[in-house]
Amino acid sequence: MTAYTKLSDTEKEQLLTELRQPYDAFAAQQLNLDMTRGKPSTQQLDLANDLLTMDGFTDSAGTDCRNYGGLDGLPAMKALFSEIIEAPAENIIVGGNSSLTLMYDTLARASLFGVSEEASPWHGQAIKFLCPSPGYDRHFTVSQSLGFESVHVEMTDSGPDMDPLETLVAQDASIKGIWCVPKYSNPTGIRYTDEVVDRLASMKTAADDFRIMWDNAYAEHYFRGELDSVKEILAACATAANPDRAYVFASTSKMSFAGSGVSAFASSANNVSFAKKYISAQSIGPDKVNQLRHLALFPDLTILRDHMRKHAVLLGPKFARVDQILHEELAEIDIARWTKPRGGYFTSLDLNTGSAKRTIELSAKLGVKLTAAGAPFPNGVDPQDCNIRIAPSFPELADIETAIRVLCLCAKLATLEAWRSKLNQ
Amino acid sequence: MTAYTKLSDTEKEQLLTELRQPYDAFAAQQLNLDMTRGKPSTQQLDLANDLLTMDGFTDSAGTDCRNYGGLDGLPAMKALFSEIIEAPAENIIVGGNSSLTLMYDTLARASLFGVSEEASPWHGQAIKFLCPSPGYDRHFTVSQSLGFESVHVEMTDSGPDMDPLETLVAQDASIKGIWCVPKYSNPTGIRYTDEVVDRLASMKTAADDFRIMWDNAYAEHYFRGELDSVKEILAACATAANPDRAYVFASTSKMSFAGSGVSAFASSANNVSFAKKYISAQSIGPDKVNQLRHLALFPDLTILRDHMRKHAVLLGPKFARVDQILHEELAEIDIARWTKPRGGYFTSLDLNTGSAKRTIELSAKLGVKLTAAGAPFPNGVDPQDCNIRIAPSFPELADIETAIRVLCLCAKLATLEAWRSKLNQ
Repeated sequence: MTAYTKLSDTEKEQLLTELRQPYDAFAAQQLNLDMTRGKPSTQQLDLANDLLTMDGFTDSAGTDCRNYGGLDGLPAMKALFSEIIEAPAENIIVGGNSSLTLMYDTLARASLFGVSEEASPWHGQAIKFLCPSPGYDRHFTVSQSLGFESVHVEMTDSGPDMDPLETLVAQDASIKGIWCVPKYSNPTGIRYTDEVVDRLASMKTAADDFRIMWDNAYAEHYFRGELDSVKEILAACATAANPDRAYVFASTSKMSFAGSGVSAFASSANNVSFAKKYISAQSIGPDKVNQLRHLALFPDLTILRDHMRKHAVLLGPKFARVDQILHEELAEIDIARWTKPRGGYFTSLDLNTGSAKRTIELSAKLGVKLTAAGAPFPNGVDPQDCNIRIAPSFPELADIETAIRVLCLCAKLATLEAWRSKLNQ
Repeated sequence: MTAYTKLSDTEKEQLLTELRQPYDAFAAQQLNLDMTRGKPSTQQLDLANDLLTMDGFTDSAGTDCRNYGGLDGLPAMKALFSEIIEAPAENIIVGGNSSLTLMYDTLARASLFGVSEEASPWHGQAIKFLCPSPGYDRHFTVSQSLGFESVHVEMTDSGPDMDPLETLVAQDASIKGIWCVPKYSNPTGIRYTDEVVDRLASMKTAADDFRIMWDNAYAEHYFRGELDSVKEILAACATAANPDRAYVFASTSKMSFAGSGVSAFASSANNVSFAKKYISAQSIGPDKVNQLRHLALFPDLTILRDHMRKHAVLLGPKFARVDQILHEELAEIDIARWTKPRGGYFTSLDLNTGSAKRTIELSAKLGVKLTAAGAPFPNGVDPQDCNIRIAPSFPELADIETAIRVLCLCAKLATLEAWRSKLNQ
C-alpha cells in the first residue's frame, strides 16, 4: 500500500472503482451496528449487579435511608467522593443519577441568581462560554440551551490551547466560563498537564464571575497502563487566589449502572453554601437508598479501584482492536491520524479536511451508525469537517472489527471522492 | 369543664395556676418527640421493602434499564402514572426521586425561557404567585426562592376562596400562577370541589401565561372511608379552552420509600413538548432501575391501591387518636377547632387568634417539636397566629397521645396567657 498522496490520478480513479467491490460486499451483509454513544457494555454493567439487592436500609450513622431528609448526601458517600475528587467532604454535595443535571442546574442558577450574593444574574446578559473542541457535545448543549454563545477553542494534547484562551478571557468580560474534561478527555482521551491546570486557575479574566466547569467524568476510568493523575483544580484555584473559580463534577455512572448511578458536585465553601441555599428550595434531598447501594458496592476507594480494573479488562481489548484495525487499514495510506487513549470512552479519528461528514454518511448507508459529524464541536459544526468520534465500549469485539473496517473503507472512499471533486472543479 | 369564654377572671387566673402542675409533670418527663414533618413511619416504609431486591433489570419492552437512555421514563411507568393522574401516558414525563424538584424546575424554566415559545421569560419581571393558605410551606419556598412575591389567598373547605381569587387574577397581570394540593390538601385535608376545579380552569386571567401548579401529592393517600376523587384539572382546562393552563405533579414518595420514590409531571401536549426541549439538555434520563423496582411493587393501579389500604390501616388509628385527644382536651372548653381529614398527612388545628406561636413555644420547652408557627403561610407568617399543623404519621401511637396532650395543655396556657395579657393592657 502506498500513501494516497503519492498515487497518480489514474491510480486514484482505479482505486475508487476497486473499492466498489468491498463496499457492495458490506452492503450485502445488511449490517446494523451502533457506535454512536459512549455507554458501558452489558458485561460492564453486570460487574455491578450486586446493586440489585441490598441487605439493609440504614447507613453507618444509623439513618433510615428510606425516609426523607439529608440535603447533601450520606456522610459515607461524601467521604467516598471526597477521595475521588480530592476535595474536603464538607465541600461536596451528592446529587441524583446524573452529573449532567448538576452541571445544568449550576449554570441555570448562575443565570437566575448569579454565582454569588454579590454577582449579577447572567440571564439577560450576552454570555459566552469557551468550548475546547473536539469536546463533549452534551456540555455544549447545556450552555447553548441556556442561551450562552459557544466560543471555539482549540484542543491540544495537553489541554485547551492556553495562549489564545488567555487572551480571550482577559479581553472579553462576556466570557463567563469554560467546559473541561480534565482526564481522558472526551473524545481525544488527553490529560490536562499541570501547567494547563495552573494557567486555568491563575489566568486573569475580564469577568469577575468566570467559572470553570470541571467535569471529572473519567476520574477512575483507565484501561491501559496505570491510572493517570491530573492536578486538582480546586486547590490550584485556591493557591492562585481564585478560590471560587472552579465547579467540579463526578459520578459513578460508568462505574456502576450508567443510568442509575450517583453524582457529586464539589467547589469552594463559598460556592457550596451559595448552591445549597437554592438546592434546599429545589429538593428535599437525593436518593439515599441508592447511595447506600453504592456504598455496599464501593465501601472505599481501594475496592472501587479494584472494580475499575475489571472494567479495564473489558474495555482495553476493544480499544486495542480499534487501534489495530485503524492501523492495518489507514497507516500506510496516510489519510488519517487517531488517538491512542489510556482511559475514557473514545478514540478520536482525524481524516483529511472535508471528509468526516461523507465518511459517516457512507458508513450509515452500510448500516454502521457513528456519532454525527461535528457533534464534538460547538453548534455541531466541525470547522475542518475532519473529526470522527469512535465509541467502542458497547459493541462486541467482532462487531467493533466490522464497524471499524466499514469506517475505514468509507474514509478511503470519502477521501478519494473529495480528491475527484476537487479535480473536477 | 366549661367553655373558657364563660369563665370569670378569677376562675381563669385560678386555672392558669392549676395548669402549672401538669406542665411541671410533663417537664419532669424530659420528653423528646418530633411532630414537625409529614413523613411515613418505619412500619409504612417496611411495606415497600420488596424494593430492596429485584430479580432482573429489563423492562417489559426488553430495555436494559441499567444503561443510559430514555428521557421521559419507562413506558410501563408512564402508564401507571397515567392511571394515577388520569392523563394520557404520552403527556407524562417521569422524573427522579422528587416531585418538588420537578415543580422547581418547571418554574425555573418559566423564569429562564417563559412557558412557551411565544411567552416572555418571567426573570426580570415582578412576578406574583397565589398561595392559598394554610398550605404547603415548601411550595411557597419554591416560588419565593425564584423571586416571586407570595400573595395570600384564603383556603376554604372546598378549595381556595374563589371570589376574591378570580378578582385578583382578572386584574393583575403580574400574577402568574397558583399553588394547589387538590386532594387531602396540606394541611387542612380538604378536597377541591368540582366547582372550584372548573372555576380555576375557566377563570379569566390578566396574564396570558398564568399557570396552575397542581400538586396531586395525595392522589391515593386516604385512611378513612373510601378514596375521594377530585375532578381532573387537565381535562377541565381543555374544556374551558385553556388547554395549557395546568402543570400536574405526582409521586410515589409516600407510597414506597419517601426519599427514593419516582415522580411525574403531566400537562398538555404543548407544555410537555416545550418542557422536553429543555429537559433533554438537563438530563440523559431519570433512574430507570428505580422505575423497574417500583413497577415490580406496583404492577398496576389495583395492586397499588391494595398497598395504599395497608398504609391506611397504619395511618387511620393515628389520626383517630389525634382527634380523640383533641376532643377530650379541647371540645368542652371551646378554644379551638380542627380538621377531621379522610386522607393526606396532617390535622390542622386552629386556636384563638394570637395563640399558635406561644403554644408551639411552650410545647418545645416540654420537648415536643411541632411545625414552626406560620410555616403553612407565605413568608412564614400566619396573619391570625392561630394555625398549628399536626403531623402524626411518623411517631408511635403512645407518643402521639403524649405529644397531643402536651400540645393541648400548652394551647390552654397560651390562650389563658393571651387573655391575661389583654386584661393587663
